[in-house]
Parts: sequence; structure tokens; C-alpha cells
Amino acid sequence: MKVLSPSRAAILLAISAALYCSTQTFAQTTKAVDGTGTQSQGAESAATAKIRLTRKNAAYWEVTFNNPPFNIVGPAEVRDLVKILDEIEADRKVKVVVFDSALPDYFMAHYDLLKPLTDSTEMTPGPTGMHPVPDFMVRLSRLKAVTIVSIRGRASGIGSELALAADMRFASREKALISQFEVGAGFAPGGGPMARLPRLVGRGRALEILIGADEFNGELAERYGYVNRALPDAELDGFVDALATRIASFDRQTIVDTKNLVDLASLPSDAESQTGWDTFLTSVQRPGAQARVKALIEKGLGQSGEIESHLNQSTAEFKE
Amino acid sequence: MKVLSPSRAAILLAISAALYCSTQTFAQTTKAVDGTGTQSQGAESAATAKIRLTRKNAAYWEVTFNNPPFNIVGPAEVRDLVKILDEIEADRKVKVVVFDSALPDYFMAHYDLLKPLTDSTEMTPGPTGMHPVPDFMVRLSRLKAVTIVSIRGRASGIGSELALAADMRFASREKALISQFEVGAGFAPGGGPMARLPRLVGRGRALEILIGADEFNGELAERYGYVNRALPDAELDGFVDALATRIASFDRQTIVDTKNLVDLASLPSDAESQTGWDTFLTSVQRPGAQARVKALIEKGLGQSGEIESHLNQSTAEFKE
Amino acid sequence: MKVLSPSRAAILLAISAALYCSTQTFAQTTKAVDGTGTQSQGAESAATAKIRLTRKNAAYWEVTFNNPPFNIVGPAEVRDLVKILDEIEADRKVKVVVFDSALPDYFMAHYDLLKPLTDSTEMTPGPTGMHPVPDFMVRLSRLKAVTIVSIRGRASGIGSELALAADMRFASREKALISQFEVGAGFAPGGGPMARLPRLVGRGRALEILIGADEFNGELAERYGYVNRALPDAELDGFVDALATRIASFDRQTIVDTKNLVDLASLPSDAESQTGWDTFLTSVQRPGAQARVKALIEKGLGQSGEIESHLNQSTAEFKE
Repeated sequence: MKVLSPSRAAILLAISAALYCSTQTFAQTTKAVDGTGTQSQGAESAATAKIRLTRKNAAYWEVTFNNPPFNIVGPAEVRDLVKILDEIEADRKVKVVVFDSALPDYFMAHYDLLKPLTDSTEMTPGPTGMHPVPDFMVRLSRLKAVTIVSIRGRASGIGSELALAADMRFASREKALISQFEVGAGFAPGGGPMARLPRLVGRGRALEILIGADEFNGELAERYGYVNRALPDAELDGFVDALATRIASFDRQTIVDTKNLVDLASLPSDAESQTGWDTFLTSVQRPGAQARVKALIEKGLGQSGEIESHLNQSTAEFKE
Repeated sequence: MKVLSPSRAAILLAISAALYCSTQTFAQTTKAVDGTGTQSQGAESAATAKIRLTRKNAAYWEVTFNNPPFNIVGPAEVRDLVKILDEIEADRKVKVVVFDSALPDYFMAHYDLLKPLTDSTEMTPGPTGMHPVPDFMVRLSRLKAVTIVSIRGRASGIGSELALAADMRFASREKALISQFEVGAGFAPGGGPMARLPRLVGRGRALEILIGADEFNGELAERYGYVNRALPDAELDGFVDALATRIASFDRQTIVDTKNLVDLASLPSDAESQTGWDTFLTSVQRPGAQARVKALIEKGLGQSGEIESHLNQSTAEFKE
Repeated sequence: MKVLSPSRAAILLAISAALYCSTQTFAQTTKAVDGTGTQSQGAESAATAKIRLTRKNAAYWEVTFNNPPFNIVGPAEVRDLVKILDEIEADRKVKVVVFDSALPDYFMAHYDLLKPLTDSTEMTPGPTGMHPVPDFMVRLSRLKAVTIVSIRGRASGIGSELALAADMRFASREKALISQFEVGAGFAPGGGPMARLPRLVGRGRALEILIGADEFNGELAERYGYVNRALPDAELDGFVDALATRIASFDRQTIVDTKNLVDLASLPSDAESQTGWDTFLTSVQRPGAQARVKALIEKGLGQSGEIESHLNQSTAEFKE
């Protein structure tokens, strides 16, 4: 298999940067994007509102996504996530962190494709030396604290990737819809699912999820092993809270020791995450991706609930 | 664990070839095999009839096994499969290939054990340097095109192995019966399932499938992760066609990039496939295998629907 | 990830041995443990009664745990298990070994925490050079004979670990309750589940089992892949016996060859098992573990059916 080395990717990126001007959006679209009704406003000033960290007690924290209408994540939200990650890493008492959403229909729609690509590519690398998106994902997996994701509503793209990078995933049987839509939009996912899904659900189901690029409801996600379990929606919050409370009652160092050994047996290498990110960056800048993303943005991607709730259908309607 | 190096296997094979004359069948049987009603006639002249390649459109191809009564695969059919593989590899537009059967009761019974073993061992190695059977399997897994196997009826031995080497597997809930019967017949499977099944379904279920050597219906195959999903028989064809059509609408290079990274995380090495083939070759020539295969051929293996549809029971009836 | 090298672990253990006197129990408890009603008496003299080896025929053996009331395993029972393992290893005809319990409510409760820790740490290493517990586990996995575990009642700690180290696991749908309770008791499991569970059930479910440290009934254990299958209690014994009888009818060398290749694709290294054992030893001697185990022993751990049947609740009641 031919994979891009980081240096090769950097060269490609430099060429891409020369070809695509610095204000390039993810897709050059003829439609004006005024930002109204999008996820992109006020990112810097309202971090705590968009991604809310609650310390339920010293050992049990909760991170709630509250960025209506779709909990879309772009460069600003990645910075917010990294700040919260820094806090979790630095704390000596936290044992368990639950990630959930304040929006009933969206856990996290996907990455923000309306912003210029350079807003993403020019971000300062994280402590692992990688771009903040893969850096966040690998650091999330290696936290000393246990992370539990509670999925209600749609989780696609980076929403699915965040869930996969966390330790455990529980889904609403009736209301969760999980997917990696990216291949349908013409580019490879960047947050690590090619590394994580085959190890979690096996090669066959991973390829179906990634290349079929369709939605999985809670029940099917459980059958595939995409989530630990799907629970009746009315029981999901109580189940996750009880599990987190239980773990928070245990000895912290024992949790750390046990997780370290599970990581040894199960985590992909950082190099594999870097390769995934490089592949995303290269693919998203190809004309094929540009045309598909442009078509999706023209239909209302990131702006209209209509397309967001039928993204799996919209991706298959593109005519080459 | 002691595994055979290729060179050691070659020596063993040479010794075996000296011990067993060049017209040795897989099992030396006292029963005359006249070929009537078997899979073995006309392989060279009717390749397109026995294994049919249909280009539904430039991006979506279908390979249909139509070799009644059991879709048994022997050296001639392997050559046909390799030719089709060559075509898929060489094409620059195909994105997805569906493998299915024209026979309602058999996806693919198993490898042809009536032919002389030397017909198989003397085949010219493929581009990977391996025998055409393991060569086909590893090249099938690495195709740029996505491969989807639709299983209705029995898939055993090489039928199961082909399904496992493909990217995704869907089964008829009512009519699929999947198995690796080989251990029951006294020899180790040769097409890679010891490498693939543990990575797909975990060690415990892999050992049960391989060493229990019994049949798994669609529902149980799904529960075990042996197939992606079992669908009601009436929905299977429509589901697979819709998925293939969907994938065929996506960007080809994006599919390739994504699959490459999944392969990196999930495919066994070629060396592991070679070792599996060597183990098969050594085991099938031992007296234990010869006696068991002979007993099965005398009962009608490869010739009678009665034994083919009760192969899992017949293997357990042998008295040492 | 920081893991202990064997030599570093030996130093730590030596320090621990100096800090904790040679008669240290697993937890220094103020409650007198008189042994009445516990698992610990008569270990040396009644080995065949506590762990019973039955040769059903030359090819099919059965190992039955019969150490009421809980089938607790301590140093003496580990020695008994190793003797049986030696017999299985030395025999040239045995093809399949079933492990089950004569007690309706317990397959195997957990390791004996009432004995002095030095009774365990001073045991002579096994042929792998490891302590007899990890030595037993890795040798169990590599037996030429196929091993099948039939789980009825509770299997926790070393009971779960023995099941995971065996080749296949079947559970009573109504009566099996499987768990790794250790993290709840303040120490990391020592018999290899951090190495085995992620490979068997994926990282997310492995972390839930290990760090949630709660019980899984037969049905959920099957859904997670923790066991091969859960069967109605009335069918469990017949199913396991039929599978073992079937395997016993097959060619022994073919079983060995096939299992060897599955092992190559699926078994963790001995180094990983050693690291798991070192982590257990270090963690169980920390004050956090000592306090939790002491509290559990005071409630009746290893002595009272009341706490043994609510161990998953008791572990979460500890106040730091």
C-alpha cells in the first residue's frame, strides 16, 4: 500500500496551497455564504456556551456540545475542544468524562466545510506534532480519564470520529444515526476512522461504514460493534450516568493502569493517524471532492436542516 | 508456533510429489470417477458460462458463478477467476464488483477434490509469487474496486474463503449456509481463513468455525460477524444492488484511498497467506486426509447432492 | 505507555516484599479469617476432588471445578490446574478438553484474596519463566488440544480469565454472569484480560468490561463477543458435548495445524501477559487496593454467598 509520508504530504499541501489561494473554502462555491444560521459565528467569544464543561464532581466531568443547529465543528471549536482536553489532561482527580449533546437531533453533524481550508491547515500543531484534529483524537484516546460518549441524534464525520477515539460509545436506540459521510462527499475521512473501525468492527463492516458512507441507526450500530450498546432513548442518560458514577467511585491509578494495557493491545500508532490526516488533506483538495462539496453546499450543507437530515441521500445524487 | 517457510514447504512438496505419483488425485479412491454430473468438464471451453462477468455499467460489475450443480471450483475455474481478476485490476473505471451465484442452493460448494492434486500444485504462480489460489485471494483483497459478496445457498471451503477475502459479505437469512468444512475432511483450509477469521470475528469464534467445521446459517453468521449482515432472502438482491449502485456513484480515487488505509489496519501479510497454503498442501497429502477424503468421495463428494447438502454431518461420521 | 519490564517488576516486588511482611494477606484485615466455610482448606490433599479430570475417551477430556461453595482458586488450586495442564500437554491422543463446573451457581468466583500474598508470589515459575498464573494462561491458549469452556453461574476474575485464555466459550443464557470485578476492588486484573479482551470484543467493549467491572449475563456476553454463544440453559450441556464429540472425531494433526495458524493471527505475546501480571502485582499492593480489598473481606468476600452474589454492587459502595 502506498501511504503518504508526512514530508510528502507537506509538499503536496504546499503545492495545493499554491494552486488554491489562501482564502479557498473547502469547496469553491458560487453561492454566497453569509454565515446566517451557520455554526461559524462567535466561536472565539462563546467557547463555554458552544462546548460546555461541567464538573459534576472532582472525579466525574461532562462535556456537552451546544452549538445549534447542528453542533458543527470547525477550527474554532477544535481549539475549544483542545482547551478542554488540556484541562482533563492536567487534572489529577478526574476519572471519567462523559461527552453528550444539548441538541436532541444532533450529537455532532460533521466538520465545517464552509470555512476556508487554510483556516484548518494553518492551525498550530499540537503536542504530538500533528495537526490539532488528529492530535486531539490521539490524545483523547490516551487520556488517563475514561471517556464515554452518549450519542443521541446524528453523529457524522468528526462526530463519529470523536466517538471512535473515545473509550466507550452508547447510543439511543431510537434517535442515534451514526455515519462517516465523507467518501460520499468525495474525500477520505481525516480523524482516524480507517485506523479505528477495522480494529473495532472488523474489516468488512468497516469498509461498509466508510465506503458505503450511509447512516447506521442505534440498533444496527450495536449489532456491528460501532457502539458498545444501543439503549432505549428513555434509558440512555440514566445508564451512562450510572456507569460514569460507578467508574468515578473506583481507584484512579487502577483505572489508568488497566486502560494503559488495553491501549497497548488496541490503539493504532500515531503514524497511522497522521497518514489518515494526510490522506484527507490530499483528497479534499482534488477536483472530485471540490465538485461534490460545492454541490452539497449549494444544496445547503451546514446551513439547512433539510440537507443535513438527508446527507446520506444527497451524497449519492451527485452526477459526475 | 512452528510455521513452514516457503522453501521448507517447497521441499516437503517435492518429497510429496515423489511419494505420490503425478496422477494422484486429492484422495486415491477405489471408486471410478467418470466425471458425469461433476463440475470438472469443459472448464477451458466455457469459462464465460461457468463464471460470468457482467458489466452493468462502467463502474459497477458483477461476477456470477454458474457452474451447476454445485459451483465447485478447481484448477480451471481458478484460472477463470484469475482472468476476471486481471480484468478488474486493469480497468480504470470500475469501482465496485458484486460476486453472486446463479444457482439457488449453492454459492460455491468447495474446491474440486476429484482432480489429481498435481493439476493444482503444478499451476503457474501468480504475480505475488504465490500459487494461484492464495495469489487470487490476496489480490482480491487489494483490488482498487470494492468487492461485495452476496451469499445464497451453501458457501464452503474456497466459497467461504473467497467471501472472506472480499471486502463485504451479505447473506440470505433463510438460505445461506456458510462453513469451512476442511478440518472435518482431515486437512487445513488453504485459502487464508486462519489469517482472516480471527481478525474478523475474534479468536474464539474463528476457532469454532474452523475446527468445529460446521455450517453457519445467515442469522448466526451475522451474529458472529462472519458476514456483515444477513437479510431476508427477498431483500438480499435489492440491498446488495442498492449498495453497489451507491458506491458506484462515488469518487473512485476516494474509494481507493479509503480502502488502502483500511487495508493497512486490517489485512494479513502475504507471508501469512503463503503459510496457510503451505499448511494446506502438507496436510492434504497426509494419510489422515487421504483416508477421510477418500471416504467422502466414495459417499459422492462433488457428485451427489445428498452428500453435498449434508457435508457437515458426513465429515463427523468417519471412523479412524 | 509506561509498562513494567520483568526485571523492574521483580525489583518492585522485592521492595514490596520488604515493606509488607511475608505473612501479608492480600489485604491486611482486622477480621480474623478462620478458614471455616472458605475455599482454602485441604487443597493439597484433595486435588482430584476440587478439580476433577475425567477422560471421557482418549480424545475427549473434561475438567470439572468442584470446590464449593464458590470454586475460588488460590495457590493450591493453581498447582492443581498446572498438573492437569501438564497431563494434557503430555498426552498424544487428547483432541478436546471441556472445562465446566459441578456447582450450579459458580463457574469460578475469583482468585483467593484471603491467603497471604506471598503464598502466591513465592510460587515457582512455570516453563515459560512466568509466574504460574500467567504461565498457566498462556500454556492453556497454546495447547494442541482444543479447549471449550462451559459457563453456568458466576465467572469472575480468574474465572473469566481462564475462559478468555481457552479457545471457545459458551454460556448459559439464563444462568451465566461473567465479569472482571478487579478494577472495582482497586487492582488491575492479572490473568491477561487486558491483552485478550480488546482483540476479542474490540477496545470499547473491553474497556467497559474491565473498567466498568460489572457483570454481563449470557445474552449480553454473546452480543459483546465475550462468549461465542449463549444457549438456553437446558441446551448448554448437550451443545458443548456435541461440539466436543464432533471435534474429537477429527484428525488430531489437522486440528493442531489449524489452531497454530489461528494463534499466529490472534494470540498476544507472552511479554504482554507478563506485563499484565506485573501490573496486577504492583497494583494489588498499593494502599488503595489494600483498603478496598480489606473492606470487601470484612463484608465477607470469599466466605459469604451474600457478598459473592452482589460483588459487582459491593465494589461500587467503597468510600475513599
